[in-house]
Amino acid sequence: MIRIGIFGYGNLGRGVECAVAQNDDMELCAVFTRRGPSGVQIRTPGVPVVAADELPAWKDKLDVLILCGGSATDLPEQTPRCASLFNVVDSFDTHAKIPEHFAAVDAAAQASGHTALISCGWDPGLFSLNRVYGEAVLPEGASYTFWGKGVSQGHSDAIRRIAGVKDARQYTIPVESALEAVRAGKAPVLTTREKHTRECFVVAEEGADLARIEQEIKTMPNYFDEYDTTVHFISEEELQRDHAGIPHGGFVLRSGRTGVNRENTHVIEYSLRLDSNPEFTSSVLVACARAVSRLAARGDAGCKTILDIPPALLCRESGEELRKKML
Amino acid sequence: MIRIGIFGYGNLGRGVECAVAQNDDMELCAVFTRRGPSGVQIRTPGVPVVAADELPAWKDKLDVLILCGGSATDLPEQTPRCASLFNVVDSFDTHAKIPEHFAAVDAAAQASGHTALISCGWDPGLFSLNRVYGEAVLPEGASYTFWGKGVSQGHSDAIRRIAGVKDARQYTIPVESALEAVRAGKAPVLTTREKHTRECFVVAEEGADLARIEQEIKTMPNYFDEYDTTVHFISEEELQRDHAGIPHGGFVLRSGRTGVNRENTHVIEYSLRLDSNPEFTSSVLVACARAVSRLAARGDAGCKTILDIPPALLCRESGEELRKKML
Repeated sequence: MIRIGIFGYGNLGRGVECAVAQNDDMELCAVFTRRGPSGVQIRTPGVPVVAADELPAWKDKLDVLILCGGSATDLPEQTPRCASLFNVVDSFDTHAKIPEHFAAVDAAAQASGHTALISCGWDPGLFSLNRVYGEAVLPEGASYTFWGKGVSQGHSDAIRRIAGVKDARQYTIPVESALEAVRAGKAPVLTTREKHTRECFVVAEEGADLARIEQEIKTMPNYFDEYDTTVHFISEEELQRDHAGIPHGGFVLRSGRTGVNRENTHVIEYSLRLDSNPEFTSSVLVACARAVSRLAARGDAGCKTILDIPPALLCRESGEELRKKML
Repeated sequence: MIRIGIFGYGNLGRGVECAVAQNDDMELCAVFTRRGPSGVQIRTPGVPVVAADELPAWKDKLDVLILCGGSATDLPEQTPRCASLFNVVDSFDTHAKIPEHFAAVDAAAQASGHTALISCGWDPGLFSLNRVYGEAVLPEGASYTFWGKGVSQGHSDAIRRIAGVKDARQYTIPVESALEAVRAGKAPVLTTREKHTRECFVVAEEGADLARIEQEIKTMPNYFDEYDTTVHFISEEELQRDHAGIPHGGFVLRSGRTGVNRENTHVIEYSLRLDSNPEFTSSVLVACARAVSRLAARGDAGCKTILDIPPALLCRESGEELRKKML
C-alpha cells in the first residue's frame, strides 16, 4: 500500500481524499492543516487530522505527501520545504513561474534524496503532455489550447473585488468557429479575442449602480479588456441554484503537415469535459503520487514534471499487464 | 545529429524518409532493402540504398534503425535480429502477439546491450498512451476506442481475395450515435455492430456476379459478419479518382466518475484525423527514434514500448525549454 498524506483540506484536498479511496493500492494516513486540527472534519474514518507543525514527526510514515495549497503563496513556500522531508506532488499552476518553482523544489529534493513532481493537474499537466506529444510527432504545424466552458476562479474573484458586487461566477468559453477552423486543419492565427469569450453572472448589492459595475468588468485590464464579455445580473438564489458547480475543461489541438510537398494534413485533438475541476485535478495528483512512489523506490531523486514520467508508472497494472491489455 | 537507417521502403519507409527531413537533429544515413538495391529509387540525394544482407557492416554507423516491414511476417523475424546489431524502432501492430514479440525483442536487445522500442504508431502507440492515461486518472470508468473514418488495409485485401473482384477499398466508420453516447458520459455497453459500420467500394471483373460478391463480403467471418456493411460497385477510374488516399483516424475516450457519491462525471477524448495513415505512423516512429537514441546514450538497454518513454524524450527541446514553453 502506498501511504498518502494530504497537506491542505480545501476543494483540492477533499478531492484527493476521494480519489485515494478510488485506488485500492493506496491508503490515506493523515491530513495536515494550518488551521486548528479540531476545526477540520474529514470524511475518512480513523484518519488523523494533524497540525502542519507536526509534519517533521511524520517523516518516515508517508510514502508521498500531496500538497493541496494555492499557487500564489502556499506552494512556492510549502513544496520546497516539504520536499526536504517527503516525496511530494503538487499542482503549481502559475505557468510563468514554473522554472523558478522547479529550481527551488529540485534543490530541496536533491539535497534530501526525495522525489518531487510539480505542476501536475490538467493545465499544467495532461494538456502539457498533449502539447509535447503533438509537437514531437508533427514538428511542422500549429498548436492551440482552448479553455472551457468552465469557471475561472481568478476571474470570478476579480469581479467580486468590484465595489457593489456581492458574489460572481465567470465562465470562460471557447469560440466555436475558431475551434472549427483549427479542427479543419486551417492553422488560423487567432487573437485573444478570437479564441475565448467571457460570461459573467453577478449578484449586485442592493442599490448598486449596475451600469458602472458592468463597465468596470468589461474594461478590467488583463482580465477582461481583451475579450468579448457578457454580464448578467442575477439573484443570490439563482447563483446558488444554477452556478454552484465548478465545471471546466478545454481542448489541446495540434495540426501539422507531412509528405514530400507537405500535402497531407493531420489533426490531433485532446479534450476534457469535467463536472468538477478540483476533483479531476485531484485524480491526476493521485495517479502522479503512484508514479512518485515508484520513482522514489528506484532512488530517482530530484524534481520532475509529468513530462518526465514514463506513462506506465501512473497505472496500477504492471508493465506486462499494460502491454497485454492496453497497448 | 541522430543517424537514422530505414529498413524497408514501402509506404511506411517512404513516410519515415519524409519525417526525418522534418527533424533537423536527424539525418538519414541509409535505406536497407531485401529487393535488389538498384531497383529502389529513394528521394533523399546522396543516401545509399543497401541490400539487407549488408546490415551487419553498418553496425556502428547508425544510431537507430527504423523497421518499416509488415507485422504479419517481417517484423517478428527482423526486429529481434536487428536488435542484436542496432537500436531499433518498429510499429508492430498485431495486438494479440505483442507480449510474444516484446519477449523476443527484449531478449535480443538485452543480450546485445541495445535499446528497442516496439509497437509505436498510433494504435498501438498514441491511442495506447491515451488508454493508459485515461485509466490512471479515472480508475472508475469506461474506456472506448473507435477507429475511422479510414481505410482498413486488411479488410480491403480480404475483399480483393474474393473471386471476381479486381480491386477494393474498405472504410471503417464509427457510429456517430455511439460516439455521442460515450461523449455524454453515459458509459454505454456497445456491441461490435453498434460501434462501427463498414463501407466497401469494389471494382468487379467484367461479367462477375455482383450479388454473389456482395453476399460473400457481407457474410465473411471475422471481417464483416458482425458489422453492418454497405457495398458499392464502382469503376476502376472512380476508385483511382475518389479513393486513392490512405486516410484514417479515430477516437479514444475515457469517462469516469468522482466525488463522495460518484456524482461528478468527466469525459476525456482523444482523436486523430489523418490524411495519410502511413505518413502519420512514420512521424510517430521518428519521434520515438529520438527517444531511443537518448535512452541508448544513457545505457538503458532492452525492449520498451511508448508506455515506458518519458514524454520529454520524444521532443527535440531540452527539459528546461519544455518546462518553460510547453508545461
